[in-house]
Amino acid sequence: MLTLNETHDANLLSWVDSANDRSDFPIQNLPLAVFRRSGSDEPFRVGVAIGDQILDLAGVAQSDALTTDNLCARALATCGDDTLNRLMALGLPHWSALRLTLSRALRCEAEEQTALTRWLVPMTGVEYRLPCQIGDYTDFYTSIYHATSVGSLFRPDNPLLPNYKWLPIGYHGRSSSIAVSGQNFHRPYGQTKAPDAQEPAFGPCRRLDYELELGIFIGTGNDAGAAIQLDQAEQHVFGLCLFNDWSARDLQAWEYQPLGPFLAKNFASTVSPWVISLEALVPFFVPFARPADDPQPLPYLNSEKNCQQGAVDIQLSAHLLSAQMSRQGHAPAQLSQSSFRHSYWTINQMVAHHTVNGCNLQPGDLFGSGTQSGPTPEEAGSLLELSCGGKIPLTLPGGESRTFLEDGDTVIFTGWCEKPGFARIGFGQVQATVLPAHPDMGA
Amino acid sequence: MLTLNETHDANLLSWVDSANDRSDFPIQNLPLAVFRRSGSDEPFRVGVAIGDQILDLAGVAQSDALTTDNLCARALATCGDDTLNRLMALGLPHWSALRLTLSRALRCEAEEQTALTRWLVPMTGVEYRLPCQIGDYTDFYTSIYHATSVGSLFRPDNPLLPNYKWLPIGYHGRSSSIAVSGQNFHRPYGQTKAPDAQEPAFGPCRRLDYELELGIFIGTGNDAGAAIQLDQAEQHVFGLCLFNDWSARDLQAWEYQPLGPFLAKNFASTVSPWVISLEALVPFFVPFARPADDPQPLPYLNSEKNCQQGAVDIQLSAHLLSAQMSRQGHAPAQLSQSSFRHSYWTINQMVAHHTVNGCNLQPGDLFGSGTQSGPTPEEAGSLLELSCGGKIPLTLPGGESRTFLEDGDTVIFTGWCEKPGFARIGFGQVQATVLPAHPDMGA
Repeated sequence: MLTLNETHDANLLSWVDSANDRSDFPIQNLPLAVFRRSGSDEPFRVGVAIGDQILDLAGVAQSDALTTDNLCARALATCGDDTLNRLMALGLPHWSALRLTLSRALRCEAEEQTALTRWLVPMTGVEYRLPCQIGDYTDFYTSIYHATSVGSLFRPDNPLLPNYKWLPIGYHGRSSSIAVSGQNFHRPYGQTKAPDAQEPAFGPCRRLDYELELGIFIGTGNDAGAAIQLDQAEQHVFGLCLFNDWSARDLQAWEYQPLGPFLAKNFASTVSPWVISLEALVPFFVPFARPADDPQPLPYLNSEKNCQQGAVDIQLSAHLLSAQMSRQGHAPAQLSQSSFRHSYWTINQMVAHHTVNGCNLQPGDLFGSGTQSGPTPEEAGSLLELSCGGKIPLTLPGGESRTFLEDGDTVIFTGWCEKPGFARIGFGQVQATVLPAHPDMGA
Repeated sequence: MLTLNETHDANLLSWVDSANDRSDFPIQNLPLAVFRRSGSDEPFRVGVAIGDQILDLAGVAQSDALTTDNLCARALATCGDDTLNRLMALGLPHWSALRLTLSRALRCEAEEQTALTRWLVPMTGVEYRLPCQIGDYTDFYTSIYHATSVGSLFRPDNPLLPNYKWLPIGYHGRSSSIAVSGQNFHRPYGQTKAPDAQEPAFGPCRRLDYELELGIFIGTGNDAGAAIQLDQAEQHVFGLCLFNDWSARDLQAWEYQPLGPFLAKNFASTVSPWVISLEALVPFFVPFARPADDPQPLPYLNSEKNCQQGAVDIQLSAHLLSAQMSRQGHAPAQLSQSSFRHSYWTINQMVAHHTVNGCNLQPGDLFGSGTQSGPTPEEAGSLLELSCGGKIPLTLPGGESRTFLEDGDTVIFTGWCEKPGFARIGFGQVQATVLPAHPDMGA
């Protein structure tokens, strides 16, 4: 169903010039977000990114600027909403029709140029909100490198548990505290217990960390009791974003047994504003091959298609800008770079596993991929791993050191896909800043 | 803030006669639900239970049947909604004003009787839906008896983990698969691994269980970063219901480490339709005393008020009716009976702990109390415990035996409060039936 088509042609250029020069948002990308002009009281609405501009799709829908087929017309009719949920519920044929229409209308020499130009809004002057109302949020754990290195810190004798290679480990997270890029949150309080202490203590988290993840938005859901089959799963995925699953490691160590992470994870999580469609990523689907010695997945998690093009080669990078670095004029320092292609489980396997027991997904549900650490130490997607459990500090430009995050630190993720013969597809960025612990809560 | 008042007076009688004879729903209760006439295409709307009748509050709001103050008028204005979320967001003064107005108008000799009578709907002829849109659902683990006996099955050497007496253990669950009483669901499929097997197998769950829990609905929420203090927590609780947290024990045993339960819990959870206000339960608040040898809670989880009236004495019981029992005319068989007063953590402690890290609660969020097992074996709130991990079958009327649930089994929970000098407050019931595993999913 998802195949290369005319929208992927690397030779396409847009009449929006800024889209044509290694932008994150060339005409081959066309991601969606919910936006309005900064500081205005305009309604939030759906827009598509093209270069450094946003095409206001609510405005386009109200005008006669686009000639559309029925599928595209129904998709466009949802773009005045302040969430993508109705569009997500329409399904892949509608998303695809909208994408094709926009691709054609934004190309050089398209006759729609004049009518569409008035609906362009410069990206520099907008604010975003969450792309959709997130019903349920599930976080997976798909990097075997992350699972192994974190496991070795918590359980030196038994780093990778026996179930890891058989099923995509996941757990339910908190939706209410997920916000869009720019979320600045107070360092959380909580209980911690030092290994040699008799009793736990209460106070601000001292081992605050980021987790470099992809977010996966579900489009069409499934009825309760009706599993989504592996090879149909891609039709249920609306798109991808960058995702920072902030984690309080010291709270987590004390609270997580036996039922998993709770307050260590639910104080904040941050998504990037732009949702990249799975269709835009088709050129970057790559074979997914397990090591020959590993067990083959059970049939509901295994297919030829999943092996041949189940993985996606998305580069991910994390940068840190401290308050001091910012004052001294340093650029953000790269902490790690990895790729989603290293994931031990594919997106389609996550969807198939999540629903195999009859669990119903709904439009707007969010999956986190889990921290995407790669095979080498520099590819680790968290400070917990980069600092070897807080033992080896990292040095920042300007001379500061870090094992975990300090107040005033801003963490920035970027993501992109590149491949000869295809346009670069960017994810934009997600950033957020750690504020000091709330003074009223220390009692 | 929550204190005994005229609505609790045991001498009050209603002009709805059925409310006056040990009904679950006397005039001292006045729980809310979302309902419509069965099989109709009427809009769902809010009603209050009185005896065997429902007073249609959407109808009452449209008429001039009630004279109200401003607080009550604003509460009543939300009752045409098909969820309680807007009412939940208004706050305790509004909920309390509505309760007082309804109490006065439903009393014997109230002048409103004539005007209200036309808005009564017999409870036997209605269908319910979820009382609200549940944003996030958190399941706690507050029975130390349950935690100890389950822990001894999973970890014989280490049944109760060191954190248990220091914080209310909780984890995030799945909202989308929560439905109202009457939810009939297919036995889930999943991966299981026998202790002596080399590899996991895929198939229908063989150790399907119920969990006898209370549900706790959040009313007003809190802003991100702003914790709810222990002694203010009760103002944020809209009300309580019965809650069955269905569990697939064999799936859980294989999947739950290291991040907690996932597919073992997210295929179905069932709530009772009627939400009992915390105010109706004031007469049943009881002292909460930890064993003298146990550690005292950290300050944010400890207060004089929490010790003196933090617990609630709610009787809970679980019954089973198999398909064969139903055919042979047997009544449902009681499996267990317990009380929420045995909970090791109070509702207010759950709220205070959940938000102490800045996590924001929202109107309509649901907490599960965790399985409410009491101190004796007969008070165990799950088959896992009653059958000693599946080793000792229970015998049912008609001669069947059970370790775990079979297809066609209906599980029914009831709940109630009783105390000399006060009216009995009932919770109604929650029931649901296990359907066979979906035949299409066996591949």
